[in-house]
Amino acid sequence: MSTTPIALQTLKEQWMNYIHDLQDRICNALETIDGQATFQEDKWERAEGGGGRTRVISGGNVFEKGGVNTSVVFGPVTDLMRTQLKINGDNWFACGLSLVLHPNNPFVPTVHCNYRMFELYNEKQEVIDRWFGGGTDLTPYYIFEEDAMHFHGTYKEVCDRFDGSFFQKFKKECDNYFVNKHRNHERRGIGGIFYDYQRPAAGQDEDYWMNFGKACGNAFLTAYLPIVEKRKDLPFTPENKYWQEIRRGRYTEFNLVHDRGTIFGLKTNGRIESILMSLPPTVRFDYNYQPVPGSEEDKLLQACLQPKDWV
Amino acid sequence: MSTTPIALQTLKEQWMNYIHDLQDRICNALETIDGQATFQEDKWERAEGGGGRTRVISGGNVFEKGGVNTSVVFGPVTDLMRTQLKINGDNWFACGLSLVLHPNNPFVPTVHCNYRMFELYNEKQEVIDRWFGGGTDLTPYYIFEEDAMHFHGTYKEVCDRFDGSFFQKFKKECDNYFVNKHRNHERRGIGGIFYDYQRPAAGQDEDYWMNFGKACGNAFLTAYLPIVEKRKDLPFTPENKYWQEIRRGRYTEFNLVHDRGTIFGLKTNGRIESILMSLPPTVRFDYNYQPVPGSEEDKLLQACLQPKDWV
Repeated sequence: MSTTPIALQTLKEQWMNYIHDLQDRICNALETIDGQATFQEDKWERAEGGGGRTRVISGGNVFEKGGVNTSVVFGPVTDLMRTQLKINGDNWFACGLSLVLHPNNPFVPTVHCNYRMFELYNEKQEVIDRWFGGGTDLTPYYIFEEDAMHFHGTYKEVCDRFDGSFFQKFKKECDNYFVNKHRNHERRGIGGIFYDYQRPAAGQDEDYWMNFGKACGNAFLTAYLPIVEKRKDLPFTPENKYWQEIRRGRYTEFNLVHDRGTIFGLKTNGRIESILMSLPPTVRFDYNYQPVPGSEEDKLLQACLQPKDWV
Repeated sequence: MSTTPIALQTLKEQWMNYIHDLQDRICNALETIDGQATFQEDKWERAEGGGGRTRVISGGNVFEKGGVNTSVVFGPVTDLMRTQLKINGDNWFACGLSLVLHPNNPFVPTVHCNYRMFELYNEKQEVIDRWFGGGTDLTPYYIFEEDAMHFHGTYKEVCDRFDGSFFQKFKKECDNYFVNKHRNHERRGIGGIFYDYQRPAAGQDEDYWMNFGKACGNAFLTAYLPIVEKRKDLPFTPENKYWQEIRRGRYTEFNLVHDRGTIFGLKTNGRIESILMSLPPTVRFDYNYQPVPGSEEDKLLQACLQPKDWV
């Protein structure tokens, strides 16, 4: 943690401190609710600049596999970034937290969140652009309406503190992003919020979107832990586990075929094990698996095919 | 099967008949060696033209999951094909057999093969281009040198009947294609042969590459069945199965991130279940899994990192 007084820290320093503090808080809370497994940390460095702290949990009471990762990376803007990411400038900087949790119990949903900041600099190392992005989305295996309402409601409350239009807008972006386009536009789960390339509008403070990212990051434990608490000890059958593993197959398909961050990381020499920690621990790919119409499994599938307003 | 005398059939008709006959022969032989499961056939049609016969086996004595598929598809050349596949002409036609087998026993290797023909036509429906492609590659979980030698040796013998340079050339293309570039260029398995865009050279008969494809297709059972026969009843431990599922994770990564055919199919509204039948039945993704140096698992990994000449 930096000892510079907050008032004198750059936005970049404030965000880096926030992200690392959030990582600590989330890992502590998750270890407490798991009651068995602890996070193992791997610190890594990137040859081109920066590095990260990957923290992975596995074989827990609650969490079969998960990661809560931070990274602070930077370097010169490459040709690939110019063409594929439409990025200009001489140097870039990115800092974020990325989290995926795959619970053991099929009644506890998988969750993902990512909050990040990006800066671009000219040759004099002056900031010429800065944006924030992020989001949190839920991937249940069975629908509990009250859980879906609680999760979406938590982020609606955060969004409404900033702007009454944000929740509908960012929920829609989320529904449109986590999509297996090759499967009749089936969603990965029941969504949440997703936003990217956010810069202050005229009249907004420079730290507007940083504060929004912090508010969303702080809401994660509020949004997710009560659901874990309610569902983690529900008894489940091998058939429930089977269905979870089938849906985890869809999660794998999305991450490897469509997720921009994953694909970019794999093609640009990112730290592979940190990127692919998002993949589920055990997965099934059955030929042409279809749930029984009207079953609890089918209800989940229908919710993924037709996003709805939970709040 | 067409009743037109062979001498009067077009190459296209001969190849279609061959592919469907090969599908029958392979499925029959695999059912016999499995002794329990049988192939289930799904015939499908493609809105834009043509269709296929997908034959899937699962839950067998030997084969945990597998597919032996044929397709005969055609249509107008689209803008996507022009830009992404560099294809010209007014209409196209493709016909091929594609096979993936995932055995239950970790000592029996997974195998893949694909043999296909492509034709392009001008506005008068005259053939303006034609090429053949294909290959067969082996993905073992444990190395048995005699199996690797038998598999590679079978295709070397086929290649040598046509041209003494083919085997080395097509083996190298195979080693260079089935690569998880994001994992330090680790190969999916120990290779085999792979060739594409083959057209007759000056002085070669029009059916040269069709005959090569037929010879390779006919060699499949010779290359693979003796290995299955030798290994299918070997006892194995849960640790062997665990390792198989870890390696199946790499297979999944290759197919979803790098395989040109899979990605093109997913992005162009192919029949998803037929394309993704290639994915393994059960898969594990562990964070940073490393086999013990010098172990049998490590020997397999080293063989995937450093392709070698088995014959």
